[in-house]
Amino acid sequence: MSPERLTAQRKSSPSQWSLLSIRGRVHEILAHSQAEDTVSKGFDAFIVGLILLNVVAMIVESVQRVYCLVPRCFDAFELFSVAVFSLEYLLRIWSCVEAPEYARPILGRLRFAFSPLAIIDAMAVLPFYLPFLGVDLRVFRMFRLFRVMRIMRIAKLARYSDALQMLLRVVKSRKDQLFSAVFILLILLIVAATLVYYAENEAQPKAFSSIPAAMWWAAITLTTVGYGDMYPITPMGKILAAMIAMLGIGMFALPTAILGAAFLEDLDRNKKPRKCPHCGKEITG
Amino acid sequence: MSPERLTAQRKSSPSQWSLLSIRGRVHEILAHSQAEDTVSKGFDAFIVGLILLNVVAMIVESVQRVYCLVPRCFDAFELFSVAVFSLEYLLRIWSCVEAPEYARPILGRLRFAFSPLAIIDAMAVLPFYLPFLGVDLRVFRMFRLFRVMRIMRIAKLARYSDALQMLLRVVKSRKDQLFSAVFILLILLIVAATLVYYAENEAQPKAFSSIPAAMWWAAITLTTVGYGDMYPITPMGKILAAMIAMLGIGMFALPTAILGAAFLEDLDRNKKPRKCPHCGKEITG
Amino acid sequence: MSPERLTAQRKSSPSQWSLLSIRGRVHEILAHSQAEDTVSKGFDAFIVGLILLNVVAMIVESVQRVYCLVPRCFDAFELFSVAVFSLEYLLRIWSCVEAPEYARPILGRLRFAFSPLAIIDAMAVLPFYLPFLGVDLRVFRMFRLFRVMRIMRIAKLARYSDALQMLLRVVKSRKDQLFSAVFILLILLIVAATLVYYAENEAQPKAFSSIPAAMWWAAITLTTVGYGDMYPITPMGKILAAMIAMLGIGMFALPTAILGAAFLEDLDRNKKPRKCPHCGKEITG
Amino acid sequence: MSPERLTAQRKSSPSQWSLLSIRGRVHEILAHSQAEDTVSKGFDAFIVGLILLNVVAMIVESVQRVYCLVPRCFDAFELFSVAVFSLEYLLRIWSCVEAPEYARPILGRLRFAFSPLAIIDAMAVLPFYLPFLGVDLRVFRMFRLFRVMRIMRIAKLARYSDALQMLLRVVKSRKDQLFSAVFILLILLIVAATLVYYAENEAQPKAFSSIPAAMWWAAITLTTVGYGDMYPITPMGKILAAMIAMLGIGMFALPTAILGAAFLEDLDRNKKPRKCPHCGKEITG
Repeated sequence: MSPERLTAQRKSSPSQWSLLSIRGRVHEILAHSQAEDTVSKGFDAFIVGLILLNVVAMIVESVQRVYCLVPRCFDAFELFSVAVFSLEYLLRIWSCVEAPEYARPILGRLRFAFSPLAIIDAMAVLPFYLPFLGVDLRVFRMFRLFRVMRIMRIAKLARYSDALQMLLRVVKSRKDQLFSAVFILLILLIVAATLVYYAENEAQPKAFSSIPAAMWWAAITLTTVGYGDMYPITPMGKILAAMIAMLGIGMFALPTAILGAAFLEDLDRNKKPRKCPHCGKEITG
Repeated sequence: MSPERLTAQRKSSPSQWSLLSIRGRVHEILAHSQAEDTVSKGFDAFIVGLILLNVVAMIVESVQRVYCLVPRCFDAFELFSVAVFSLEYLLRIWSCVEAPEYARPILGRLRFAFSPLAIIDAMAVLPFYLPFLGVDLRVFRMFRLFRVMRIMRIAKLARYSDALQMLLRVVKSRKDQLFSAVFILLILLIVAATLVYYAENEAQPKAFSSIPAAMWWAAITLTTVGYGDMYPITPMGKILAAMIAMLGIGMFALPTAILGAAFLEDLDRNKKPRKCPHCGKEITG
Repeated sequence: MSPERLTAQRKSSPSQWSLLSIRGRVHEILAHSQAEDTVSKGFDAFIVGLILLNVVAMIVESVQRVYCLVPRCFDAFELFSVAVFSLEYLLRIWSCVEAPEYARPILGRLRFAFSPLAIIDAMAVLPFYLPFLGVDLRVFRMFRLFRVMRIMRIAKLARYSDALQMLLRVVKSRKDQLFSAVFILLILLIVAATLVYYAENEAQPKAFSSIPAAMWWAAITLTTVGYGDMYPITPMGKILAAMIAMLGIGMFALPTAILGAAFLEDLDRNKKPRKCPHCGKEITG
Repeated sequence: MSPERLTAQRKSSPSQWSLLSIRGRVHEILAHSQAEDTVSKGFDAFIVGLILLNVVAMIVESVQRVYCLVPRCFDAFELFSVAVFSLEYLLRIWSCVEAPEYARPILGRLRFAFSPLAIIDAMAVLPFYLPFLGVDLRVFRMFRLFRVMRIMRIAKLARYSDALQMLLRVVKSRKDQLFSAVFILLILLIVAATLVYYAENEAQPKAFSSIPAAMWWAAITLTTVGYGDMYPITPMGKILAAMIAMLGIGMFALPTAILGAAFLEDLDRNKKPRKCPHCGKEITG
């Protein structure tokens, strides 16, 4: 529901500050973030801030020494976060029917609950409730990753930064070409791994034990990381590896060139108002 | 033979569904891949899919634990693949005379059999038949590489992806400049290896035992991989290595700059002529 | 005070070669560096040269063998440098009131003393005087870093190099976008570190002991440095690491593309308007 | 002396096929390489080929096993190369007076002998003659480097490759900016090394023993080579190193962006003949 319609609705029935109009307002706050709506913006900032604090807490907590100092603090913050995120999740489920695509009361809510962002939101709080259902504790650790993935909500902040927005727009505009570059990289990876596996397997049966093992080596070489945990020792393997490393240079050149051209095009499109040589009027875009 | 001519031929003699017209159709399916020809496109997809499955099988098979689980599965799939690839190879040899450049029955087929792609196709199935000819088993491993090289047929799929096609076109358009960059890299490699060999040989007679050994080090340093299996320890060697590593930065800059300029030129050339929104006439540039 | 006003002032009262006009001249020499003012330029060169010699001395001095050879030399040079830098600092404090923004005798000088460059200047000489105040010697080492930071004064030299000036201008013009790229890099760093921490912590509890430890690994991997002191050993960790290393390629692509576009725009903007060789009129673009 | 003048001179006195005109022709062959002069081009190719063979011989010879197989071959080739290079050097000295800048018989020849290329040529053959003068054998090894440096003569071949020529021209056109980038890199190197030296020296007094030692680490980190022979272990050192490694990304971005812009400008200048909007005539360049 558009903010205009909502305002109009509320104006026409000022007495009906009913549950329905509250739901509309809640949806407005949660889903949109209009530049003029200070409550919505404030809520966004609060949730993003809490997510960031959660991530910081998770990072700091993982250091045993720090956690042992103030375990109560971390536990209390965890409780508070789960409470807020759970409430936010329930409110989102409740108010989602305001959006035209999830309008139907039950089916719409179910469809919303299975949208990627909603699943991540659910997974982020689920591990807290699982013990009450008697689920094994080891699975928890995996679920904390979803807490980190909620960081994606930070993308909303991009709206407030022109530079970040431009970066994301440019990268998005070349999605196809970048995926093609990754595709070429993957083919290169397989070919490189197979070649070096056959060259090195006999000399280093333990390090280059299989092609998947060689693929780890190839990935770390093509990206020029080069940990040094695996490297060829036969002359043939070394010649192949040197050539593969040189092709790795090309893997840096492709995405850089793609993005460079995209940046320039974006700059061009958003900068100069040109004049039509026929009628003399200005043309934008 | 162009599809039009073929269709015309077949139309004019509907009764003559002879061997000749079958050969023409087979050639059509194997060699071309017209957008409208669904059989040809389906065949392409099948062969490329089988090659990909072969590569996956080869990768997975190389892990001893996995192979030992279901050796029969891998052997059966190998048999099936060789059968299909052999048939495909024979059909290609048989039908190649339909192409004007290989028109002569025997000489044409021989010339086709010695074209690079045909050699790779033959090498990919050869190792399977060699044991029957009593050839030593050790040679086999080398030949599996040809199976991987068949992955090049995947390039045909590029036809269906605009982005991938553009990437390959751009890289191809700067072939000369990229080769020149590789040439400069090679000269740099030799000079770097020689300099560091003379600086380090006395201090590390085992690691920097010869200039070819130092070239391995130089390649891994210029590409900024840096495994850490070899590095200079003398002050002179370290100063040289630091300068060489900095030149390595330039080796990334050159191809990236070359491709970046090429991408922009390609973008410029293929820019759709726009229309002035005021007078409707086309504007170029 | 602008040089014009100063010259005018001095001209109007040639007899008053008073302390005030000396202060004006001192401020002129220290703060500005007009192209025509040879004294000011000479002073700049002297101070920058002394800073560079200090840095060289600090580098060479850190080699114990060299320091032990001629300890007196280094100590004498230290004494001389501190004397010059202290005098320079005092003169700057004394003459700063000539600038309109620090015009008030006491408050202005205090505000100047707390400007970043003035603090660095003070910190650079402070460690020499601290022992007289009975401060612990260990703190000294930290303070020498400020001596290195004075190297920033070298930026003044950039004024004399068109190329360096252009580089700094271009980098500055894309400050926002470069910071956005660093922001993306930081998010990537946290996500990568958390994922690999959960994947590797059990297998390598000592190396991947906490998320901050994993962040060190992630930083060294995303920048493709790859020391090899930490690397994943579990299959899941290796797959994640390979994907993270590939994203690291993108981290090189973004700033390069940003700067590439900026260089071209700068080139475009500063392009000299050309003249048509036929009719002599100016052509833009 | 220009080829036209020489030809004219020879034409006017066909009978005088004297020593003087031979010297002119020799100078022509050695110094210039006109596209039409097949003898000069052939001589160029011969010398460059011999230099390349020398480099290959030096590389292969350094492998003890290979040298021990056919020591006589290498020694004979060495003798032949020294003979040719010595003769070439003497002819260059003899004929250099034909060039206007070295016209004076003795002083001109001396000045020519001290030009960089001539010194390299002399140094390349000198080690062979030194034993007859009773000079210590150890010095020899250093001199072989000059043999490698003669590879620079290969640049002459660039004349025959448009792509290579364009690469060198573009890199040359941005010499100033590239040197500025190296200058920034050097300042960064010193600051990084000093910071990490103070952070790590206490924890690793052996590895980070002095600032020059830390500079080796900084160079290998800023260029993202990362051998792994030295790396920080203290939290402060790791934070600094991570930030330095990220700045290292910028060191790749700068030269790439500089060259990218240069390539585009070169493309622009050499491509489109434009029309003057005032008089309508074509403008090139």
